[in-house]
Amino acid sequence: MIIVMKAGAAKKDRDEVLRRIRELGYKPHVIHGATRDVIGAVGDERGKAVLQSLESLHGVESVVPILQPYKLASKEVKKEASVVRISDDVVIGGEQVVIMAGPCSVENEAQIIESAEAVKKAGAHILRGGAFKPRTSPYSFQGLEEEGLKLLAKARDLTGLPFVTEVINPETAELVAGYADMLQIGARNSQNFALLKRVGQLRKPVLLKRGMSMTIQEFLMSAEYIMSEGNQAVILCERGIRTFETATRNTLELSAIPVLKGKTHLPVVVDPSHGTGDHHYVAPMCYAAVAAGADGLIVEVHPDPEHASSDGPQSLKPKKFAAMMDKLRLFAEAADRKL
Amino acid sequence: MIIVMKAGAAKKDRDEVLRRIRELGYKPHVIHGATRDVIGAVGDERGKAVLQSLESLHGVESVVPILQPYKLASKEVKKEASVVRISDDVVIGGEQVVIMAGPCSVENEAQIIESAEAVKKAGAHILRGGAFKPRTSPYSFQGLEEEGLKLLAKARDLTGLPFVTEVINPETAELVAGYADMLQIGARNSQNFALLKRVGQLRKPVLLKRGMSMTIQEFLMSAEYIMSEGNQAVILCERGIRTFETATRNTLELSAIPVLKGKTHLPVVVDPSHGTGDHHYVAPMCYAAVAAGADGLIVEVHPDPEHASSDGPQSLKPKKFAAMMDKLRLFAEAADRKL
Amino acid sequence: MIIVMKAGAAKKDRDEVLRRIRELGYKPHVIHGATRDVIGAVGDERGKAVLQSLESLHGVESVVPILQPYKLASKEVKKEASVVRISDDVVIGGEQVVIMAGPCSVENEAQIIESAEAVKKAGAHILRGGAFKPRTSPYSFQGLEEEGLKLLAKARDLTGLPFVTEVINPETAELVAGYADMLQIGARNSQNFALLKRVGQLRKPVLLKRGMSMTIQEFLMSAEYIMSEGNQAVILCERGIRTFETATRNTLELSAIPVLKGKTHLPVVVDPSHGTGDHHYVAPMCYAAVAAGADGLIVEVHPDPEHASSDGPQSLKPKKFAAMMDKLRLFAEAADRKL
Amino acid sequence: MIIVMKAGAAKKDRDEVLRRIRELGYKPHVIHGATRDVIGAVGDERGKAVLQSLESLHGVESVVPILQPYKLASKEVKKEASVVRISDDVVIGGEQVVIMAGPCSVENEAQIIESAEAVKKAGAHILRGGAFKPRTSPYSFQGLEEEGLKLLAKARDLTGLPFVTEVINPETAELVAGYADMLQIGARNSQNFALLKRVGQLRKPVLLKRGMSMTIQEFLMSAEYIMSEGNQAVILCERGIRTFETATRNTLELSAIPVLKGKTHLPVVVDPSHGTGDHHYVAPMCYAAVAAGADGLIVEVHPDPEHASSDGPQSLKPKKFAAMMDKLRLFAEAADRKL
Repeated sequence: MIIVMKAGAAKKDRDEVLRRIRELGYKPHVIHGATRDVIGAVGDERGKAVLQSLESLHGVESVVPILQPYKLASKEVKKEASVVRISDDVVIGGEQVVIMAGPCSVENEAQIIESAEAVKKAGAHILRGGAFKPRTSPYSFQGLEEEGLKLLAKARDLTGLPFVTEVINPETAELVAGYADMLQIGARNSQNFALLKRVGQLRKPVLLKRGMSMTIQEFLMSAEYIMSEGNQAVILCERGIRTFETATRNTLELSAIPVLKGKTHLPVVVDPSHGTGDHHYVAPMCYAAVAAGADGLIVEVHPDPEHASSDGPQSLKPKKFAAMMDKLRLFAEAADRKL
Repeated sequence: MIIVMKAGAAKKDRDEVLRRIRELGYKPHVIHGATRDVIGAVGDERGKAVLQSLESLHGVESVVPILQPYKLASKEVKKEASVVRISDDVVIGGEQVVIMAGPCSVENEAQIIESAEAVKKAGAHILRGGAFKPRTSPYSFQGLEEEGLKLLAKARDLTGLPFVTEVINPETAELVAGYADMLQIGARNSQNFALLKRVGQLRKPVLLKRGMSMTIQEFLMSAEYIMSEGNQAVILCERGIRTFETATRNTLELSAIPVLKGKTHLPVVVDPSHGTGDHHYVAPMCYAAVAAGADGLIVEVHPDPEHASSDGPQSLKPKKFAAMMDKLRLFAEAADRKL
Repeated sequence: MIIVMKAGAAKKDRDEVLRRIRELGYKPHVIHGATRDVIGAVGDERGKAVLQSLESLHGVESVVPILQPYKLASKEVKKEASVVRISDDVVIGGEQVVIMAGPCSVENEAQIIESAEAVKKAGAHILRGGAFKPRTSPYSFQGLEEEGLKLLAKARDLTGLPFVTEVINPETAELVAGYADMLQIGARNSQNFALLKRVGQLRKPVLLKRGMSMTIQEFLMSAEYIMSEGNQAVILCERGIRTFETATRNTLELSAIPVLKGKTHLPVVVDPSHGTGDHHYVAPMCYAAVAAGADGLIVEVHPDPEHASSDGPQSLKPKKFAAMMDKLRLFAEAADRKL
Repeated sequence: MIIVMKAGAAKKDRDEVLRRIRELGYKPHVIHGATRDVIGAVGDERGKAVLQSLESLHGVESVVPILQPYKLASKEVKKEASVVRISDDVVIGGEQVVIMAGPCSVENEAQIIESAEAVKKAGAHILRGGAFKPRTSPYSFQGLEEEGLKLLAKARDLTGLPFVTEVINPETAELVAGYADMLQIGARNSQNFALLKRVGQLRKPVLLKRGMSMTIQEFLMSAEYIMSEGNQAVILCERGIRTFETATRNTLELSAIPVLKGKTHLPVVVDPSHGTGDHHYVAPMCYAAVAAGADGLIVEVHPDPEHASSDGPQSLKPKKFAAMMDKLRLFAEAADRKL
């Protein structure tokens, strides 16, 4: 870390800072500047947020961290890209751009089977569908819960598609992991650390969605939570951040793809359905995400969006999804990937 | 809700919308506009988010909700301001501006006792202190857990101050409620619906912090989650939102006080410590919050901020806290309140 | 517009609203709702922002606009996509994805000539370069001014590339228009209405950059300013918005491409250099922008970025730019466009 | 500045960085860290943004500025608070909290005279009113221009109140300065550098509004633009920033008051009318601003808001303004100021 002293700070203030740096196990190094001193604290600062407390010392203007605070998720620690195995046939992070598709919520047997068959036919690799639903309103449909998991498993049996579904409570995480091939942590739970630790203890891949107001660094720290409990199979999902713009439901930050690729070895996928909130914008954002280097996409597809219990406006109909997939193949090839 | 049709939408599209509105239990009402039709759907739309799915219909441009989606939290349902009882001596929402103060984390017995005595002496009404800590890094101090709760109870016995502490997991909510006088839901868990439901089932007042990227409406929906489970004793806490500005840790939105007061009967308090992240700015923001009509404040006070395990830079020393309290009395009087 | 009355508003308040609606030239239409009345004001509300003032009336809860406030820029008024002619050889908005490239600032003759030749060789269609520079600091390099324009004209003579350069002051707009093939309005001047009007009176195409905190609707209103003065040759440029994320200089909002394409007939181009602020992220964002449907790109290229007077960190070296262009061709083809 | 090298950067990369630091006139100072080197560049970096270009060098991870880029506006350069004289009777930055009030736009003689007399009677010190209006829509009322200035001068003659009015174009700045006592730069022109330079050359105090997405540092850089042209009479005005929250028109950032007070000697005033956009919230935000240490307020007051040509919903009626002023006195006293 770099400790910036105030202009004209007293020598005794500086000496106290030096003493505290040593006390905390770092080696201080003073640079006498034109108008103020700057002190480098040499030592591995990861996991030592406590150094930030030096900002309370007299004469200190600011404390500037130099190292990123994550380790296991960092490319500095593991250089080669991680490839996460979801099933016998499907891995994320390899040559193939992996497509996860299906309805927002599992509503009934016919709906999930029809969805699974349609997305499979169009070329999707993984089925998505919510059984436990985190809804903004307590009066909205909260999901079929275990019954929904059973229907997803049935759809998997029929189509061969592994499935990903959301976990919303540490108490039911194990139940969900008993059915699902991949566990999803939703945006609203992206800093629910109790939940992150629990899925870190399970042995199922985790699709971690970025929180609505999460920086890239915090996103990687949430991945680090899961990894530090022993589960390295984490896939990062950009799904839009909250900004002032209201023309879309969220602002899909596609530059997060190259930024994350520069910092971590974990695979990065994109959710253009939640990222835009409007089915008209889903296809162009799918193409753009793959062009920018995404390892996969998660797309909402519903056979009858006007009657969907949730997220109808952002769901593609199967026919539109199939057309999107056809065109997506061309962009995957241009990106030197396959679908 | 108002359904706005596209300019030049076909009659059959409009008829389908009318049919669906009736099917969903509303009465449609068409306004023929200069360039397009607008359809009002009459009926209580609260708890009927499903109407939004009409956006997927052909010919529909947008669906505009008219009613707020919350009921129990709404001033329309309960006009008089709610007063929440915390202990025999302390209520929030009455004439008194209630001050909650203490360290971010409980670190050891001496620290919490010293803090409690200091804030009591300066005039605080409730002790705050974290036993279960939600930390951005898995490598940071995670709190003393139940041992911390016991120390808080000891401080309460010694000083007579009731205490508020955070709940981070549905599995340990009951344990925390066994010790605490008020349960805090932190900003990162403000849309952890499993946790909101759990504290809604307990019979302890809840201090609900606003999430970092939560709109006022979503904030009230999270309160509604707790209330819809039977617990009406909810206190709303503005603690800063995330914006582009980095000069402060968050952007404390004091206009949220009058905005909330216009929409809900629940008490509103402010956390200037997290709201600014810098102890230099805490006192002016305390004065401003009370001037704007806050029912209380929650302030971080630590006897030795330079050695704090968390949030040192934003903690006041007891002496500064006492000086702030002295001046705050004048602002409380100007606001026709007492401290 | 829709006027939402408060629950329980008095009949005389509603009558006053009806009177005012008629007075302003609209036809009111009341919908009696379950808990409140909603009044539709029928009539073309574009250009009548004054209706918003009804929010001040007693008993009114809110006023919700239905129509977009722009006309000339709207797709409703002109359905077919606009094609803007820049020179004999170059049009924007047609089949070709148009590439504008060059240094941030014109620094000297050698630099601009070398840049122009390099980007021409790699396949760019338009040269970019700043002569009048809007800099955040008064102590930063402010541009070569007219001397810079002359050097740009020289580079055009040598390479045949038309050029785009920024206008920052109504007083020098005509001077710049005397040299340039296209006038750029920068992000910081995107709501400098005096400047927008001036370039609207000139007869040169305008590249209008989106402001850092501009909504899509405000962006189109700024285009409308130019168009309402008689100049229809406007090209919209998404260049990143300001959000809480600091990993990139701005947040490039690629979903703005399909959103704008749904609302306006004007061509849409993307600036990934300012949008990300880091040359590492420029190429993936170029590919993504074209995949999402952009009509062109504006890219900073500098022969010696480490010595650039401005924007060095986000400038590509000519060799990297050429490599990007080669790969971009594949994405343009996948998008059914040519480069 | 601090240059952070990549982990494992080659010695030759580091040597090149050292060479360039010296070439740019700084003295380099290397700290060998646990995982990477960090290089301090000693020398006054203000006005030398060019150092940022080192980020383009091979092996460099990031360049972190240490000093603030402003000088004249900085408290380090001038420690004592600046007091700006507006007229014989009114100074801003002294003991008195200065109240500027009046309508958004000058509409006609009766309206501005009535407004001036009403705000004078309630205790305001300066009249506000727009003659040249920057409006988002080209179809909205654009102001009475010079006729409006004449009416403002008439109101001044009648009431003795000096007036502040907006300048929107370098070409008309001198004209406005011929009438007005203080020139306002609006939020949308806060980085219109041509305009900032022009008002810097005039000898009239400048009320500089913060831009909607302007950081505190950029705000001070815009003040620096004006000051670097010779005009030191700058007053900073917080008027709300743009965030995701839509319950208010902007998010009034009152913490900007103590933040600015810590960095600059310039007076700081607050505009709660634009900051909230709703007259219901104006009074509490006035109280809060003064409690937080504001040197003044600028408030929209209109005798007939329902018929206002602009900003009706956020304007106070004279009676409400007078009631607010009465209560504000109490808060000013609590803050050890007078009204």
